[in-house]
Amino acid sequence: MAKDKKVTEITDMDVDFAQWYTDICRKAELVEYASVKGFTILRPYGYAIWENIQSIMDKEFKKTGHQNVAMPVLIPESLLKKEGELVNGFAPEVAWVTEGGSEKLEERLAFRPTSETMFCDHWHNVLQTYRQLPMLYNQWCSVIRWEKTTRPFLRSREFWWQEGHTIHETAEEAEAETQQQLNCYADFCKNALAMPVVKGRKTDKEKFAGAEATYTIEAMMKDHKALQSATSHYFGDKFSRAYDVTYTGRDNKLQYPFQTSWGSTTRLIGAVIMTHGDNNGLVLPPAIAPIQVVVLPIAQHKEGVLDKAAEVVARLEKSGIRVKGDFSEQSAGWKFAEWEMKGVPLRLELGPRDIEAGQCVVARRDNGEKVTVSLDELETKIPELLTAVHDGLYEKALENLNKHTYAATTVEEVKDVFETKGGGFVKTMWCGEEECEVKMKELAGVSSRCMPFQQEHLADTCPVCGKAAKTMVVWGIAY
Amino acid sequence: MAKDKKVTEITDMDVDFAQWYTDICRKAELVEYASVKGFTILRPYGYAIWENIQSIMDKEFKKTGHQNVAMPVLIPESLLKKEGELVNGFAPEVAWVTEGGSEKLEERLAFRPTSETMFCDHWHNVLQTYRQLPMLYNQWCSVIRWEKTTRPFLRSREFWWQEGHTIHETAEEAEAETQQQLNCYADFCKNALAMPVVKGRKTDKEKFAGAEATYTIEAMMKDHKALQSATSHYFGDKFSRAYDVTYTGRDNKLQYPFQTSWGSTTRLIGAVIMTHGDNNGLVLPPAIAPIQVVVLPIAQHKEGVLDKAAEVVARLEKSGIRVKGDFSEQSAGWKFAEWEMKGVPLRLELGPRDIEAGQCVVARRDNGEKVTVSLDELETKIPELLTAVHDGLYEKALENLNKHTYAATTVEEVKDVFETKGGGFVKTMWCGEEECEVKMKELAGVSSRCMPFQQEHLADTCPVCGKAAKTMVVWGIAY
Repeated sequence: MAKDKKVTEITDMDVDFAQWYTDICRKAELVEYASVKGFTILRPYGYAIWENIQSIMDKEFKKTGHQNVAMPVLIPESLLKKEGELVNGFAPEVAWVTEGGSEKLEERLAFRPTSETMFCDHWHNVLQTYRQLPMLYNQWCSVIRWEKTTRPFLRSREFWWQEGHTIHETAEEAEAETQQQLNCYADFCKNALAMPVVKGRKTDKEKFAGAEATYTIEAMMKDHKALQSATSHYFGDKFSRAYDVTYTGRDNKLQYPFQTSWGSTTRLIGAVIMTHGDNNGLVLPPAIAPIQVVVLPIAQHKEGVLDKAAEVVARLEKSGIRVKGDFSEQSAGWKFAEWEMKGVPLRLELGPRDIEAGQCVVARRDNGEKVTVSLDELETKIPELLTAVHDGLYEKALENLNKHTYAATTVEEVKDVFETKGGGFVKTMWCGEEECEVKMKELAGVSSRCMPFQQEHLADTCPVCGKAAKTMVVWGIAY
Repeated sequence: MAKDKKVTEITDMDVDFAQWYTDICRKAELVEYASVKGFTILRPYGYAIWENIQSIMDKEFKKTGHQNVAMPVLIPESLLKKEGELVNGFAPEVAWVTEGGSEKLEERLAFRPTSETMFCDHWHNVLQTYRQLPMLYNQWCSVIRWEKTTRPFLRSREFWWQEGHTIHETAEEAEAETQQQLNCYADFCKNALAMPVVKGRKTDKEKFAGAEATYTIEAMMKDHKALQSATSHYFGDKFSRAYDVTYTGRDNKLQYPFQTSWGSTTRLIGAVIMTHGDNNGLVLPPAIAPIQVVVLPIAQHKEGVLDKAAEVVARLEKSGIRVKGDFSEQSAGWKFAEWEMKGVPLRLELGPRDIEAGQCVVARRDNGEKVTVSLDELETKIPELLTAVHDGLYEKALENLNKHTYAATTVEEVKDVFETKGGGFVKTMWCGEEECEVKMKELAGVSSRCMPFQQEHLADTCPVCGKAAKTMVVWGIAY
């Protein structure tokens, strides 16, 4: 965290992390509250981050053959209810349309909380032969879940997301898809968000309603809490059977396809804020920053300064960098604070003496380091510095994750992490019984985040019941 | 229209244009009906067209400084009702959410039919000074209007669109924005959709609820009916006053900003179908075609054919063309019909003899013309041919528009166009009275499409009442 706090309006993250978070959301102009309770507005700067996330992710999805579609936003109640577990999971959170065109509807329509049911209904209508498989679909849209308490990006009644839905001939293919997409998310978090994650499988208690298996990536925020950043689900043929989705197989018999779904949301912006932000505001990884470099002329009233600054902006723009020149009449100090608040990865300063020397000064947002760069080398040095910022952010985040990940063999040790060490991820063995999972929550106040793919042998027994351990679990306090 | 109708499943456009249209929507796999009455699913091929439209348009919007945002999808009834004209215009078509999270809501929430009210509410909260103006916002989303009769793309209860919303210091700036965006739409129709349009202003009877002025672009379909393709509205400060949107002006006094909005929808895909389609199926302008070139190997079992075809695909892909190789086991005839149905602009055929001669045969979807192209020149000739297809489509559409545009000085002449000449656009003078507009509808069955910017003097008097004419109007039968 930078030490010289230039902007006084935001709360110190060490004093009140939750307030610090909300302050950044507002002061960096990412979101604003709407007149509708629990709903938020994504403002231009916040939405531009989401557009960058979409653009990168969408390209990755398409590389592996996924196609975008648009499904209706309203789901008839009868359709939603065909699969019991799903509807039980979502029913308490659904918003219902009951009137349309001045008339009361015969059947309530749910605003989509998720679209498994719509995809199945569509496949029921269009799937005929194995030649059409796999069907690899995705949609970008918003969903509604009627949450009681809401927080910008993390939990709001409407949020924006992508939901992938696929069907396959075999269980193996569907399982492979589930894993592939989880890896796609993990790679995205590393390469675009500079955010390390723990990959693993959810316990039955924590898995998605109706799924056979849910896989997750869990990130650690700066307050050492866990943030579930994306999930990928394997359904087997459960939904296919419930919605009568069939096709003629290679054996000329009617078959049920195997299904997956996977999603990530605007919550990722919340993850970025709490992974990289500091007491001067937002800190954005270059890959998703709407502005990667802000060019600030120093002593801009002096002859030639503004011209040269505009030239630098044009050159960087031309080489594909998202750059903005701030030539407003505000003071340099004000501009420094403003663009730090907005998390711009690099600040390029250019004054009369710099110009004379044929150079500029570039300050990194991640660590405050300043480098002198020859103007001749802008097009090579700036991308290098952006990479350095990305790497610097990733390393710091990885350090935070490693430093606050503990192994424990007793419930007391787990409790101790949260009571005296400021929290984190705690690895323990587990017998696999939900009873022990619930008990751990009661005793230590933590929930299971996942059973990591990277398993370790920490002990032979479950710390709760003392019976033989089946797997290693990571515990934490979740957003 | 191509003469050799290869696909028998679709209705002849001259026999039943409406059925021909629906057949294309379904057989080209653009849309599918959903279980929810009046709602449609955009399938991968249809959605890919929409993605291309979005991508081109979005870049144009951003060039002129517009920023994307996301507004909540639900609007409290009290907020919607603050501006009387708007709510009266939309109230009969609104879908209402009345229950959320298992509880009855205290106030009904409207699924957005359009978002003027939400933008105003947001500006009411965030606008403070003239320094923040103009605010140039846009959002891509879906809206619901509870239509009684629906048709794919043209009229459905949910549709996808962009809605631009801007506020400005002066009326002049807002008027200029309205015009700029109308021109943006018209240019897009010409350059991306190969579709000529008539630009003009709507009469008061036809304008958007609550607008001071509505501008429109009107295109002519192959059945000579009119399709309103996009609109741009000037609101003055009417909504600002209704929603108490104010700022401190340069004179240090509280001012109301001047507002615009402008929108275009997935209806543009319907426009493309009915502007360019023929009896073999869809015909897509290259700029928005998901696949611009389909490569079909001839006698693909012969040695070297598939390899060479794959090489051609790779080369075209590398040069930035959206290309697909169809190497399936289907017959050449089946493939020809399939890709014609899907409207792919160019079909590239490559057989053993072609390979020997170092060439391929390229067939244009717009006119069936075949050209022999040297394989050495692929990267230059294919883009040239794509341009030729675009130009060919535009010319044909322009010819259709010109050929079926008439001037009339009496109501009888107007009637005659629709009763004996197969319809079209009819230009007449008009006194400006709504009474005469209504009467023209009663007598000739047509509605006013717009008062074109390109005015002509056809007569001195209104053909309905015989009083002095104020302006020239274009009449037509609208989708």
